[in-house]
Amino acid sequence: MNKKKIDIFDTTLRDGEQGPGCLLTLQSKLEIAEQLEFLGVDIIEAGFPVSSPADFKAVQEVSKLIKNAKVCALSRARELDIDTAVNALKNAVCPRVQLGIGTSDIHIKNKFNSTRDDILAVAFKMVRYASNKIEEVQFFAEDAGRADNLFLAKMVENVIEAGATIVNLPDTNGFCTPFEYYEKIKFVIENVSNMHKAKISVHCHNDLGMATANTIAGLLAGASQAEGTINGVGERAGNAALEEIVMTLIIKDLPIFTTVDPRYISKLSKMVEIAMSNPVQANKAIVGRNAFAHSSGIHQDGVLKDRSNYEIIDPAMIGFELPDLILTARSGRAALRHRMEILDIQFQENEFEQYYAYFLQVADTKSIVADSDLIDLCKSRSRKVF
Amino acid sequence: MNKKKIDIFDTTLRDGEQGPGCLLTLQSKLEIAEQLEFLGVDIIEAGFPVSSPADFKAVQEVSKLIKNAKVCALSRARELDIDTAVNALKNAVCPRVQLGIGTSDIHIKNKFNSTRDDILAVAFKMVRYASNKIEEVQFFAEDAGRADNLFLAKMVENVIEAGATIVNLPDTNGFCTPFEYYEKIKFVIENVSNMHKAKISVHCHNDLGMATANTIAGLLAGASQAEGTINGVGERAGNAALEEIVMTLIIKDLPIFTTVDPRYISKLSKMVEIAMSNPVQANKAIVGRNAFAHSSGIHQDGVLKDRSNYEIIDPAMIGFELPDLILTARSGRAALRHRMEILDIQFQENEFEQYYAYFLQVADTKSIVADSDLIDLCKSRSRKVF
Repeated sequence: MNKKKIDIFDTTLRDGEQGPGCLLTLQSKLEIAEQLEFLGVDIIEAGFPVSSPADFKAVQEVSKLIKNAKVCALSRARELDIDTAVNALKNAVCPRVQLGIGTSDIHIKNKFNSTRDDILAVAFKMVRYASNKIEEVQFFAEDAGRADNLFLAKMVENVIEAGATIVNLPDTNGFCTPFEYYEKIKFVIENVSNMHKAKISVHCHNDLGMATANTIAGLLAGASQAEGTINGVGERAGNAALEEIVMTLIIKDLPIFTTVDPRYISKLSKMVEIAMSNPVQANKAIVGRNAFAHSSGIHQDGVLKDRSNYEIIDPAMIGFELPDLILTARSGRAALRHRMEILDIQFQENEFEQYYAYFLQVADTKSIVADSDLIDLCKSRSRKVF
Repeated sequence: MNKKKIDIFDTTLRDGEQGPGCLLTLQSKLEIAEQLEFLGVDIIEAGFPVSSPADFKAVQEVSKLIKNAKVCALSRARELDIDTAVNALKNAVCPRVQLGIGTSDIHIKNKFNSTRDDILAVAFKMVRYASNKIEEVQFFAEDAGRADNLFLAKMVENVIEAGATIVNLPDTNGFCTPFEYYEKIKFVIENVSNMHKAKISVHCHNDLGMATANTIAGLLAGASQAEGTINGVGERAGNAALEEIVMTLIIKDLPIFTTVDPRYISKLSKMVEIAMSNPVQANKAIVGRNAFAHSSGIHQDGVLKDRSNYEIIDPAMIGFELPDLILTARSGRAALRHRMEILDIQFQENEFEQYYAYFLQVADTKSIVADSDLIDLCKSRSRKVF
């Protein structure tokens, strides 16, 4: 099967940084951008230059630093925003401006107090304006997730006509199910006459916990670019987590692929976590502390027999240091035996059940039984029983 | 449209507690079970009685406490496990035993060193055994996500024949996309001759970040019960988050519904977070600290005009205390003006741009601009400029 390459668009430095309390220093932005380049993402969205002097400066400096990835800057559909973005990108090897406007009726009415026709006209005019200033223009149809599909197709045709070569259809409010988003993207691709002149990008938010699934759905429907952030950071419940999108593309047998090198994921995740002072929860997919940890007896026994029983990703693929099995009150005999062997605790086979019973008593009082607990436990049992 | 009711099966106390470091005390389990009853979940899985004396005791005590929800206990496909589970459930008003065995070829070969036929026979025998001891038997076809669909259908028919009235088809390793899981559930439902005698349950893990989307996909394919945990806790990357499933069913216009009362979600989430010492990340969907927080200028301006621009869930629905807009370097004029008005900071209209410029200077050095910062800032500007 001929697989199609998906462009990976990272927006950790822009949409990710919009998360409350996630502000990054210039130094952190440059370090993260450099790691994103190692990871091999295709596009780095570096900021929203008109929003503050520091963000302007950040886009400027990232533009100077990055050599392989394209560097993108955000803009509203306004001349001043576009001029400022183009200006900030001056030194980028491959610059891109992303500008957009709300396309759902809710946004058109409640946010802009405008009409569909006026919004189409503004979008056309501003994309044309940007196209005259910079080669690569990406348009985002804000709140596409809640927009009428027929109007959305009209908008996409309109901005491609004006010069946009990438059109992003964000589920801004994380409202879609994968089935709805798939249908939306498919509908647009099939109903835009000049679609061959542009790529569709998908950008999903996680308000219902479906951002990654929606992203994959959009790609399967024909989109060519996926947007996300490291650790899924971003406004409200955040964006689609880039590491989940990338690993899905890598381990699943799908008709699409990425050239991203996943070995930098673990390091980059920690870097973003620390720089944003925004802790990743233990059970976060791919990058959480426990994402590859097995603690229940049934699972530990299975993993000891063969890791593939309970592991679909080899943690080494993402540069994750492999933790061993963790002993808890839900651990079984196989894991206890394995750990005692690693710790070189000698025991007679007929004593083992007694060790296990005593282990459970201790484990029921602790969240995790550490190696030191196990050694103490076995010593005390030896004294008392044997 | 005639909507179908979905049974909500909470396994925070069983699969959730299997997460490393998530051990709960008996007291915590009882408090959480009581809140789950307020929430109105249909089934509470209280533990795995054979795994440890404390877990046996927990199932016993939850069984005594809970009056409306069914109480379920986990078991492997072994007589001792089943006997122990039945015993622990003795005082439950509506007891249920869930027993199961691996059904993917990976599990059959690498975990059990067995054959499909032998696994079918063991499953039949143990479901029959359990059915003779307790009225309601749920079977789980472990690793159904990676199992061959034809064999899976055979297994489902087999265990229904043996007496199971609920059959759970878990994506144990979080391997499926929503499209694959939908097809799997649909295939089973359409290819099991005695399907009318049982319900299908969906139980998804979050290894690729798709657990909630997969759960919804399985329900849309015809499953009648959804399993999950509060905050999505559980082994590795955790289970489908119950709050995400419930809120999707509530706010989306789907042919399925739940009778769960979402107003207890926020409180229950905090209770589980504290009892498990397992912090929920700020951008966790529905229950994260920032799930309803808006900090960028574009979004704040939109929310001030109409909350529906960037909010698909009213935080009050889940009992969440509404935070106001948070001021950061990405905040715009609308949010600053709104906050200054709330804080009763007087200013002349022609001074506002100067306040905004100074606000941005301060904001670029801080992650969040607190009210006290804003008051200081405005005072110092007044002294200097006006």
